Amino acid sequence: MNATDLGLPVDVPSTALFTDHYELTMLQAALKGGTADRRSVFEVFTRRLPEGRRYGVVAGTGRVLDAVENFRFDSGVLGFLRQRAVVDEPTLEWLASYRFSGDVWGYPEGEVYFPGSPILRVEGSFAECVLLETVILSILNHDSAIAAAASRMASAAGTRPLIEMGARRTHELAAVAASRAAYVGGFTTTSDLAAGFRYGIPTVGTSAHAFTLLHDSERDAFQAQVNSLGRGTTLLVDTYDVAEAVRSAVEIAGPELGAVRIDSGDLLLVAHRVRQQLDELGATDTKIIVTSDLDEYAIASLAAAPVDAYGVGTQLVTGSGHPTCSMVYKLVARAESADPKAPLVPVAKKSTGGKTSIGGRKWAARRLDEDGTAQAEVIGTGAVPAELADRQLLVELIKGGQVIAREPLDAVRDRHAAVRANLPMSALQLSRGEAVIPTEYV
Amino acid sequence: MNATDLGLPVDVPSTALFTDHYELTMLQAALKGGTADRRSVFEVFTRRLPEGRRYGVVAGTGRVLDAVENFRFDSGVLGFLRQRAVVDEPTLEWLASYRFSGDVWGYPEGEVYFPGSPILRVEGSFAECVLLETVILSILNHDSAIAAAASRMASAAGTRPLIEMGARRTHELAAVAASRAAYVGGFTTTSDLAAGFRYGIPTVGTSAHAFTLLHDSERDAFQAQVNSLGRGTTLLVDTYDVAEAVRSAVEIAGPELGAVRIDSGDLLLVAHRVRQQLDELGATDTKIIVTSDLDEYAIASLAAAPVDAYGVGTQLVTGSGHPTCSMVYKLVARAESADPKAPLVPVAKKSTGGKTSIGGRKWAARRLDEDGTAQAEVIGTGAVPAELADRQLLVELIKGGQVIAREPLDAVRDRHAAVRANLPMSALQLSRGEAVIPTEYV
Repeated sequence: MNATDLGLPVDVPSTALFTDHYELTMLQAALKGGTADRRSVFEVFTRRLPEGRRYGVVAGTGRVLDAVENFRFDSGVLGFLRQRAVVDEPTLEWLASYRFSGDVWGYPEGEVYFPGSPILRVEGSFAECVLLETVILSILNHDSAIAAAASRMASAAGTRPLIEMGARRTHELAAVAASRAAYVGGFTTTSDLAAGFRYGIPTVGTSAHAFTLLHDSERDAFQAQVNSLGRGTTLLVDTYDVAEAVRSAVEIAGPELGAVRIDSGDLLLVAHRVRQQLDELGATDTKIIVTSDLDEYAIASLAAAPVDAYGVGTQLVTGSGHPTCSMVYKLVARAESADPKAPLVPVAKKSTGGKTSIGGRKWAARRLDEDGTAQAEVIGTGAVPAELADRQLLVELIKGGQVIAREPLDAVRDRHAAVRANLPMSALQLSRGEAVIPTEYV
Repeated sequence: MNATDLGLPVDVPSTALFTDHYELTMLQAALKGGTADRRSVFEVFTRRLPEGRRYGVVAGTGRVLDAVENFRFDSGVLGFLRQRAVVDEPTLEWLASYRFSGDVWGYPEGEVYFPGSPILRVEGSFAECVLLETVILSILNHDSAIAAAASRMASAAGTRPLIEMGARRTHELAAVAASRAAYVGGFTTTSDLAAGFRYGIPTVGTSAHAFTLLHDSERDAFQAQVNSLGRGTTLLVDTYDVAEAVRSAVEIAGPELGAVRIDSGDLLLVAHRVRQQLDELGATDTKIIVTSDLDEYAIASLAAAPVDAYGVGTQLVTGSGHPTCSMVYKLVARAESADPKAPLVPVAKKSTGGKTSIGGRKWAARRLDEDGTAQAEVIGTGAVPAELADRQLLVELIKGGQVIAREPLDAVRDRHAAVRANLPMSALQLSRGEAVIPTEYV
């Protein structure tokens, strides 16, 4: 099933304009100057984690593979660039036949990362690599920010399911990517139908206050919902008086009532009262879903409450205080020609004003202790030490322009859960702190 | 020029799945229960501005009109809903012929808003209106958050131009909408080619550190850039030593050099030094562009510095601390049937837990003092007082399903500038405060 054919714009036909103007003008200057085909290595990394966070989560890699594959300049796009005089005719001709033909290595999606981790490495000619900066960073910076928040929320929720319901709080297509990233981070389901359609994430829904208010009484609303959706449905019980609503709900649906949702008030207190009332009414299997401005801290504070599932919106899709990562895409090495035998020369910005980085094509490995718990993120530019050879983190994703490492989203989600379980315990503390393992350069 | 034909996914063929699962299940229950065609009024509003903000900016309205017009369930989407058993067959049949046929009124795009302002009002049957909740809120919550940040930055920048360059820090399609919202808020140009393509926003670009590092020397890089892009280009001068770079830049391009860009370090100090050096070298017309993690406060702090333009990325596309608004879409009135003569009954959530709202179909007007400065946001549900009749804020956007109020983006941008100029002076203070005018209910 191809989403584009079905009219849903989430399989992107061309990603070529998700690009900053300067990437094309740099290309033009490099083509004219004779440096465009110099063999080059770009790396994606962050200099720091968001303040207080103990680990980052790599998400969006699968979307990056699609974006690179679909990075093509068709006649309409070329016409736009010509009309606006963004670049000259020789550059337009070069763009018309653009296909990325290089190699991409990266941390597998769902892995965790730390300051300096070379999350993605793009190798090819300067020209073909420099154009991908913006679209790669857009995807990784957005998706990883959401996945990091989701991962913390999943830790806080323990075994209780998490419902992603933030679509209304973010851009309509960012929402689809956010659902995907939330699923990677440990969420269970989503309210967003487009995310179900595009990525196969299970979708769920309850009912809004509008549905109750539409009816002449709350009882009428509950009856209509149960008549149509069955006794297993979830009734929203906080439009008028919660206790009265719970009584009506069980009267109408019986003890087979699937769940009640509480969307306002002191959730800890209300959940306890509702649980007691449901039990007294014999609805001991009816679940309680809470959904009101939750974040990882609120979820953690409800750990002892009789809550069966959490619905999370705003704080998820805005990265719980950190809506973007600070990943950058930097040229770290280049040769003096396209010749594969020409040596790669490490390069790096050197001015005193900050934003410096470490030149050279890097490997990364995670050192584990005897129990398999992560000890350090080890990064180097030379030979990989023998004891770390089988702990290397970068895998080949694109080889000679061909995507070779697509994987199902469930595999990514499982990887993240497994990797997180191997971090030191303090990674799961919600309080602010330093990166849970140090980054070592060798 | 139709963007869809050109392969760029920003004219959205169908927006029908940018919808939460529960909207469809509520629809099913209402269809079965016989309440689906009750005449209904939904309103979009916020209960509060983001903490410390003095006004909000309505943005995204134009995109909402497109989204409503393109809200259609084609066979692929219906097949997905059937396969997942989201709703039953009668509901699928109803969806197959869905076209919004109601009316939409709203604040014109670019207007400012305050707590309680009825930013958008959607009227029609319950069924046709309830489905639009998520896509409308996604667009308005995202775009208004960006526009509000942009507006503050534009105030801080005064007459100096602002370049939007945040695409790499947000979702690749959210970036296109963010450029649009930034332009509404007062930005001048964007780096995002997709935003230029889709919305006609002027695009600009300079050069990245990678371009300098590609070359054997900084001088080689500058020479290549000037050779290809002309002396009017902008050279990036902070890869190695700024003073040396400025000297090389003027030697190579001459005093006709368009601009230099500074992307790191103490911008205030460096800008002063670079200005002095440029002047000493005779490049008195060469401009200085600064671009390093700027927000409205950093922009304001550079007001006395010799800076000619600001490039803003992260803090713009993340709403400068407030990446989303808290707009909600609430049923505020409904009749007992589809009959246009049946009276509208005001409705509102009433539980003690919070999130209550004011029922009834509302008008809004802005009271001005004799100088034309805004004094109060006046909101009511009855007759509009005569003295406010020509100060009403809501305009008709969609009539009987037909969009009647499209407008060029420049008109929206001009409106915002004019409206902001008529707010009390304290609106432009960057420090935290209350809404700059009170909301009065009559």
